[in-house]
Amino acid sequence: MRPLILVTNDDGVYAPGIKFLSGIASQFGDIVVVAPDKAQSGMGHAITINSTIRIQKTNYHNALMEYSCTGTPVDCVKMAVNHILQKKPDLVLSGINHGSNSSINVIYSGTMSAAVEGALEGAPSIGFSLCDYSIDADFSQAGKYISQIISKALENKMPKGVCLNVNIPKLNEKEIKGVKVVRQSKANWVERFEERQDPYGRNYYWLTGEFVNFEPEATDTDEWALANGFVSVVPVQADMTAHKYINDLKTFE
Amino acid sequence: MRPLILVTNDDGVYAPGIKFLSGIASQFGDIVVVAPDKAQSGMGHAITINSTIRIQKTNYHNALMEYSCTGTPVDCVKMAVNHILQKKPDLVLSGINHGSNSSINVIYSGTMSAAVEGALEGAPSIGFSLCDYSIDADFSQAGKYISQIISKALENKMPKGVCLNVNIPKLNEKEIKGVKVVRQSKANWVERFEERQDPYGRNYYWLTGEFVNFEPEATDTDEWALANGFVSVVPVQADMTAHKYINDLKTFE
Repeated sequence: MRPLILVTNDDGVYAPGIKFLSGIASQFGDIVVVAPDKAQSGMGHAITINSTIRIQKTNYHNALMEYSCTGTPVDCVKMAVNHILQKKPDLVLSGINHGSNSSINVIYSGTMSAAVEGALEGAPSIGFSLCDYSIDADFSQAGKYISQIISKALENKMPKGVCLNVNIPKLNEKEIKGVKVVRQSKANWVERFEERQDPYGRNYYWLTGEFVNFEPEATDTDEWALANGFVSVVPVQADMTAHKYINDLKTFE
Repeated sequence: MRPLILVTNDDGVYAPGIKFLSGIASQFGDIVVVAPDKAQSGMGHAITINSTIRIQKTNYHNALMEYSCTGTPVDCVKMAVNHILQKKPDLVLSGINHGSNSSINVIYSGTMSAAVEGALEGAPSIGFSLCDYSIDADFSQAGKYISQIISKALENKMPKGVCLNVNIPKLNEKEIKGVKVVRQSKANWVERFEERQDPYGRNYYWLTGEFVNFEPEATDTDEWALANGFVSVVPVQADMTAHKYINDLKTFE
């Protein structure tokens, strides 16, 4: 029997990135697409509990079933696994995101939160991102590596409860040097709120910022892999406990 | 000089929980409140990048400055640290949430995401939650423990980049047995989408679910601490890397 593959994203069901990913996924199994009806970038692990959720059939992917959903990326995974699908998916794919989700971006990213949710639901899950924000980004250069990673995931190579954060550098296929399994780089955004005035004289703000890598020398990080022409793969878990500090903090008891 | 304490939450600037917390905080330092203008439960680590943000002065807390913000809890911390405050806060407090944020709830919680963001901004940060969803919840029973934890955090007892997830059982002060520093319990939500019809015959859904503790026997978890009458304190970090699987996954290279 062909594997059942759930495909979602955070750029919306009609984004070029998810179209490319669902195309590759359909070579490996039967695909079901449940993705947001609009852009949901930066939604993190948000879920919809104060308002209602709707779904609507779409006809854009070459899928067994496909729906747009008014909810967040995490809602889409919950809706698919707990309402739409009759059985647990064999694989959950999220993306391909238009733009990097390396290092600290993993916690802001709707793409990656959908993958984390897939892992929480007990399915091997992978989030893919291309380091190119353009709507005209050339996803095909990454096709070979995406196929390779999906193939390995389906061979049961993934630990339970862990998903993969895959980032692909903006390079031609021939320039990509391979895949590196690495850790999340210590980095941060230094924000700047751009203040503007509306036509009625009231201030409003746009959140902007600059990415700062706190460990540019480290060679075992996703930032290093990407800067050096590799596809970065970070195993990601939902346990946020800082285990090594539990003993130190016993002073709080 | 009195410490500068930033107070935020996800239930909104006028929620009873943040009012109680800002009251306690004002005994320890000068407080600034920047909190959402509406309930933002379940917003996780969402940030606002596809729309604008506004802030408005409020006059509900006994604070040096206070604002409501149209953004998410994480936006509120970013706005406070990068725009409103002239210097980095000595402490960031989030809550008191109306309802538990123990175990897996940490990744869905706007309250805890604000605390994680505070830690990312380099400030000692604590998220407080009371295991009582009622708007009439009696926060005062927890006051002693909240004061004790704030006091220790201000004594520089907290590791850099780590925040605390503090959950308080719904008990009278005398029934609370003390504080336990523990890890995030392995647990999950099994969702059920409640299907309803709108007056026009179209389906819509409410996300509901049941909490499942995968390790009810473990005695070093937040779920155990709460079930046994303790205030649970979990150190939380933004590094989501599943470090122990990096080597196993080298097969993907």
